[in-house]
Amino acid sequence: MTTALDDSTRNGVDTAALFATLDAVKAAPAAAAFQFRARNEWISGTHSRGTINEYFGAGEERTHERVFQFDADHPAVLVGRDNGPTPVEFVLHALASCLTAGLANIAAARGIQLTQVRSTVSGDIDLNGILGLDPTVRNGYQRITVRLTVKGDAPAEKLREIVEQSRARSAVYDVISGQVPVAIEVDTD
Amino acid sequence: MTTALDDSTRNGVDTAALFATLDAVKAAPAAAAFQFRARNEWISGTHSRGTINEYFGAGEERTHERVFQFDADHPAVLVGRDNGPTPVEFVLHALASCLTAGLANIAAARGIQLTQVRSTVSGDIDLNGILGLDPTVRNGYQRITVRLTVKGDAPAEKLREIVEQSRARSAVYDVISGQVPVAIEVDTD
Repeated sequence: MTTALDDSTRNGVDTAALFATLDAVKAAPAAAAFQFRARNEWISGTHSRGTINEYFGAGEERTHERVFQFDADHPAVLVGRDNGPTPVEFVLHALASCLTAGLANIAAARGIQLTQVRSTVSGDIDLNGILGLDPTVRNGYQRITVRLTVKGDAPAEKLREIVEQSRARSAVYDVISGQVPVAIEVDTD
Repeated sequence: MTTALDDSTRNGVDTAALFATLDAVKAAPAAAAFQFRARNEWISGTHSRGTINEYFGAGEERTHERVFQFDADHPAVLVGRDNGPTPVEFVLHALASCLTAGLANIAAARGIQLTQVRSTVSGDIDLNGILGLDPTVRNGYQRITVRLTVKGDAPAEKLREIVEQSRARSAVYDVISGQVPVAIEVDTD
């Protein structure tokens, strides 16, 4: 993989735009209020289809450049038809992609050229929880492990610092390792 | 949408298989130990590609019926190229699809025929957190709101009970609203 190496683009990150965005938010903190959304429609059994398109950010309603759709399902061993990954697998994908995007941005800001970022995120779950068979077992992951391989034109110590900073600023890491209040509103009409 | 209405399949859920799975796990609780995984490869900037295929469950290594791949990116307003949803949007999709799958299973187990499940999950986030501009602002979602429309051949009260039970047994709800320990291991060789 080759990436343009000039002052404004490193690791495919437009660092000038990155710093301009930081300055813009510093000048007008309210611009940092975002709301992301996912819509979902049940298809059959454990199979549903999610749609991601519109969001609010930087002061206005926006849409992605195209509409993204993703099916989710359970595999046969979990009484589904495997039309998509399980919902919990999407959580792992979210964590991997969040840490990776942060790595690229932080490395670019620090003048480090990355050549490879690969990861495997694994989550251990005991289905005695969601099956209601053991009240002492939680429903979600008991632990998640991220194994990252990071290569670039900096010593290992610097690369590890970038990983640590990416973790420290990762939205998805925070959602998973912290607690987010979730409200559920139901319409049956 | 029409769904077969016989004793063993309701809402597209093979209830006989569902109860057989419950009995199998009751008889051998260790079969409930699953490990899900997502692999990720950085492409450029905030753009990465996730791959979901192999997992461990019910005592053995398994693979999905096909390899699922999903790109993630930031939109231009967040200094990306919009090649995919943002990582935090995948979290919302995971929550919607998890609650929906649970609804279908629980309704089937209770003999209720669903005709529609639609949802919009929205997450509010203040980017002053991940931009490092305000140490009092968290990196992740400050709150998530799920708006569900559920229709079926049961009174509203019963449908609401099913939603509550789905929430109470949702793995993704638990991950988001609880705290999951996350370990990060870095290889720079």
